[in-house]
Amino acid sequence: MIATDFRRALGQQLRVDSIRVSSEAGSGHPTSSMSAADLMAVLLDGHLRLDYAHPADPHNDHLVFSKGHASPLYYSMLRAAGAIDEDEFRTYRKFGSRLEGHPTPRIPPTDVATGSLGQGLPIGVGLALAGKLLDRLPYRVWVLCGDSEMAEGSIWEAFEHAAHYGLDNLTVIVDVNRLGQTTETMVAWDLDTYAARARAFGWHAITVDGHDVDAIEAAYADAERTTGKPTVLFAKTKKGKGVAAVEDLPGKHGKPLEDPEEAIAELGGRRNLTVSVATPDTSPPVPQFPSGALSMPSWDVGEEVATREAYGEALTALGSGRGDIVALDGEVSNSTHSDLFAKAHPGRYFEMYIAEQQLVAAAVGMQARGWTPFASTFAAFLSRAYDFVRMAAISRADLCLSGSHAGVAIGADGPSQMALEDLAALRAVHGSTVLYPSDANQTAQLVAQMADQPGISYLRTLRGKTPVRTRPDETVRIGGSRLVRSSDQDDVTLIGCGTTVDEAVHAADLLAQDGISARVLDCYSIKPIDTAAVREAGAETRLVLTVEDHWPEGGLGDAVLDALASRSVPVHKLAVREMPTSGTPAELLRAAGIDAESIAATAKKLLAG
Amino acid sequence: MIATDFRRALGQQLRVDSIRVSSEAGSGHPTSSMSAADLMAVLLDGHLRLDYAHPADPHNDHLVFSKGHASPLYYSMLRAAGAIDEDEFRTYRKFGSRLEGHPTPRIPPTDVATGSLGQGLPIGVGLALAGKLLDRLPYRVWVLCGDSEMAEGSIWEAFEHAAHYGLDNLTVIVDVNRLGQTTETMVAWDLDTYAARARAFGWHAITVDGHDVDAIEAAYADAERTTGKPTVLFAKTKKGKGVAAVEDLPGKHGKPLEDPEEAIAELGGRRNLTVSVATPDTSPPVPQFPSGALSMPSWDVGEEVATREAYGEALTALGSGRGDIVALDGEVSNSTHSDLFAKAHPGRYFEMYIAEQQLVAAAVGMQARGWTPFASTFAAFLSRAYDFVRMAAISRADLCLSGSHAGVAIGADGPSQMALEDLAALRAVHGSTVLYPSDANQTAQLVAQMADQPGISYLRTLRGKTPVRTRPDETVRIGGSRLVRSSDQDDVTLIGCGTTVDEAVHAADLLAQDGISARVLDCYSIKPIDTAAVREAGAETRLVLTVEDHWPEGGLGDAVLDALASRSVPVHKLAVREMPTSGTPAELLRAAGIDAESIAATAKKLLAG
Repeated sequence: MIATDFRRALGQQLRVDSIRVSSEAGSGHPTSSMSAADLMAVLLDGHLRLDYAHPADPHNDHLVFSKGHASPLYYSMLRAAGAIDEDEFRTYRKFGSRLEGHPTPRIPPTDVATGSLGQGLPIGVGLALAGKLLDRLPYRVWVLCGDSEMAEGSIWEAFEHAAHYGLDNLTVIVDVNRLGQTTETMVAWDLDTYAARARAFGWHAITVDGHDVDAIEAAYADAERTTGKPTVLFAKTKKGKGVAAVEDLPGKHGKPLEDPEEAIAELGGRRNLTVSVATPDTSPPVPQFPSGALSMPSWDVGEEVATREAYGEALTALGSGRGDIVALDGEVSNSTHSDLFAKAHPGRYFEMYIAEQQLVAAAVGMQARGWTPFASTFAAFLSRAYDFVRMAAISRADLCLSGSHAGVAIGADGPSQMALEDLAALRAVHGSTVLYPSDANQTAQLVAQMADQPGISYLRTLRGKTPVRTRPDETVRIGGSRLVRSSDQDDVTLIGCGTTVDEAVHAADLLAQDGISARVLDCYSIKPIDTAAVREAGAETRLVLTVEDHWPEGGLGDAVLDALASRSVPVHKLAVREMPTSGTPAELLRAAGIDAESIAATAKKLLAG
Repeated sequence: MIATDFRRALGQQLRVDSIRVSSEAGSGHPTSSMSAADLMAVLLDGHLRLDYAHPADPHNDHLVFSKGHASPLYYSMLRAAGAIDEDEFRTYRKFGSRLEGHPTPRIPPTDVATGSLGQGLPIGVGLALAGKLLDRLPYRVWVLCGDSEMAEGSIWEAFEHAAHYGLDNLTVIVDVNRLGQTTETMVAWDLDTYAARARAFGWHAITVDGHDVDAIEAAYADAERTTGKPTVLFAKTKKGKGVAAVEDLPGKHGKPLEDPEEAIAELGGRRNLTVSVATPDTSPPVPQFPSGALSMPSWDVGEEVATREAYGEALTALGSGRGDIVALDGEVSNSTHSDLFAKAHPGRYFEMYIAEQQLVAAAVGMQARGWTPFASTFAAFLSRAYDFVRMAAISRADLCLSGSHAGVAIGADGPSQMALEDLAALRAVHGSTVLYPSDANQTAQLVAQMADQPGISYLRTLRGKTPVRTRPDETVRIGGSRLVRSSDQDDVTLIGCGTTVDEAVHAADLLAQDGISARVLDCYSIKPIDTAAVREAGAETRLVLTVEDHWPEGGLGDAVLDALASRSVPVHKLAVREMPTSGTPAELLRAAGIDAESIAATAKKLLAG
């Protein structure tokens, strides 16, 4: 019973501290913190095994606040655990503080940024997959969810995948306080409905009074005993629990309490309880997959190879050379050719089915554990996970993404399968790298470099074959480009990437017939773009013509314009400007005005004009 | 029994035609069509009430192929219904044909484009919401889903919302053929698990043999009788049903049959059955909401108003003036201020909770029925629905989106709540309009214009207040800009939008103290940008400095560079270049180098240099 009393008092302390710190900041979500305080008190005192002094220890449990707006509670736990002191605690939400409005990895042991609801749980699935199948260590992943975020589809992707992979090292705690920002949730306090959903998705589901520390204790113990499937607790709680002025009342979301001193008194005043959080058993050795000699594939100049095939072969070779490489795919592995990796390294391949949010989230979770994930699907469908990619940048994640079947060049499948905005979307992710190789040898070298590139790296690959132009011994580098042809007296520079490099080369042939000399620059690295090469081309030719299989906004053309900003260079962008239809690749390139004949005709017109 | 025989034969015809047309095209998904052929035969002959000769009739049922890759089946149905003839049927996937690889609205009565899995059902929820609560007509919405797409979270958003709104006019048919592109689905043929999930989400669920036309008949009749909740049929089917060479075999996804003639013979040869599809009861009058006098709000110059508040007031006024306006929000209506609309027009407001995919999908469904939806949430969270926005453009949807709380100017909540890539992402959507007003009067005028703007229109609004600078009688227009200050001898042009207009004005004051004359241009329309005004500024001043509360890629700066391409204008972009943290708005603007002092300092340095 001493434990019971301590935990009750700890819960009150976490509430008081959540109120204190949000009042001092003048913003934040104290009531959303207060509902989950008892749940977190019992977790911290008795179940979490996390060495806060050594947050990078691979044996540690992981705690993900999927309801990231409950950051006052999260930081109050850090204070109770001794991970931060009172002075730092009170910097909450202030400029320069590690304690941001929503948690980020700037404050260890936080694995990932949360604050976009419905992401913490699918990322937790990634951590649990890593624990069970990659790290093969007995750590547990705990995820605190809000009930409002149960409406996010990504939550149910996570539920399905966690059960499919039998993740009994994953425990989810849902703080069912029934009140969202403006209204009651659709399910309210109907815990049985939540439990029925979870069970239908293959989980062990427990309903519990989220303010009864003994009941919570029993539920956690039940979760820890459960094997073969993940466990979820649906905890009935009250938002603002313990303070009459806000408890279970609407209109109290996301604002400091009006009278914090009275509220603190009502909760029994300030406390300075500290918790000796259990540390993990560090005896299990940290297993690794073997790393062999790294031997990347290469192809002879003139071969015809689809860059997606080169991706698959390169990734497979990289996986043989490096045990940290893992691959995930959204049930199109025979299209993206991550299937080659799956065959060679089945223990490091993860089938994520048609669930692109979970695909990216799992990769984010795995990289948080030090793995180097490559996640692939059709380029068009990565847009499904754009919020996850955005948040991954805030998580300071190192993530490799590959999108295949990009552009109108896919042909008959039609625009739903064409990515025509991916370069823009990925280029606008903070710290990202955007690559679009035109041949197999470029692809292989870039895949190897992506694995060591910080931040979000994106590789766009092609459905159809392109001729290998890059010699196997040529240097290909992130931030580089390839001068495909040039002379001392070029009239025009054609800048392409991916599929349009071929078109540009053919256009240069056509222009040569008219006595016009065209330089062709292959900007396989769109971000960072090879500013020096672009500027040199701009300085040495009368016209720069960019050609991309992408909408005109935000892609290659905009990157080139950016590189040439403040330079007096006439630049003209060729891109896809009308909605494509079905057709052959050649028909669709022609219709978009990005085929060789269109390029040549435009260059001639502009040079004459 | 005649009906039974006819339906069986019709199912075989749909299979034969699916094989024929994909073989002729050389690509497509015949086996995914064959599994659902009996389900669609019974639907077409006896349950669907759709006047194919008058596809725009508001009384028509709606049929959405969420598994859009089963387009051979869809077009085979159109042929059987007499909506297209044999000649057009055989243009499938050819350049210029209306019969694209995945259905689009180019071929009536198709409401929306599908082909990105998991979207047809949530859009169907939007159509059913329109039927029940806006059109108030007895039409039924039928959605054909594949089983692979049940892994998409958006499907479960749709399940939850459809039950919450009691959409008994919605019937979903899931073609459980168990085989995805590369592997078996997670649930395989376990229909009971699917049904348990659906029931836990509040649906009437039926399991059925998807090749037994009488059982299908009974199931549809059951669905039509069911009131108060939507119905889903989980139909056990075989992929490639009826042709031994492909039936229920892996590795047969997405490719024409190897021996189509043999397969057609096995299916009983070609048929030319035609179906007199039932037409709807056209007697119910089409109700409308009242349209009053349109009186948009305005504010006096000098008032301090948040543009999100102006959005809410303008939308409410627009709703009073026009009965076609509807609003939807992702459970942050008191932040976006769509709550004002909800209070004034509760019958036309839809709470979509924390489910942004369903939020946008519902709006897409509603606009397909002729309504004019405005969907709002935090700008950052619209990224969750980016694939839906991309597809909405392919659907030729007219859609108004509003994202609030954009940029580092939100302050303490931290980067997870800041949209810093929204302008780039939305600008790269085909045919989109991207607006970012700096004051309340601009906002009100732009909201009114968005309602009539074709395509996807996006309005970015601010959390904090900005001073009203635009006079109520000034013209504000999509594609326009506002010259905030200028003289005959401006040295530099500062181009801002939204929150940075204020900063630019203050920077101009600072520069004036140093004898530098700065023009300030407010580009509230980022796409289309006011090319004439930008070029005039470029021609008349020595330097153009763009300032945006957004990453440097794809936003205002790139739009300005595009407008100035081929002009000899020195352009410099100021934007957010490092990951923001929490802080006050002023601190974060300063840290990003987009506040008045930073702008002035950069301008001075560049003019001197």
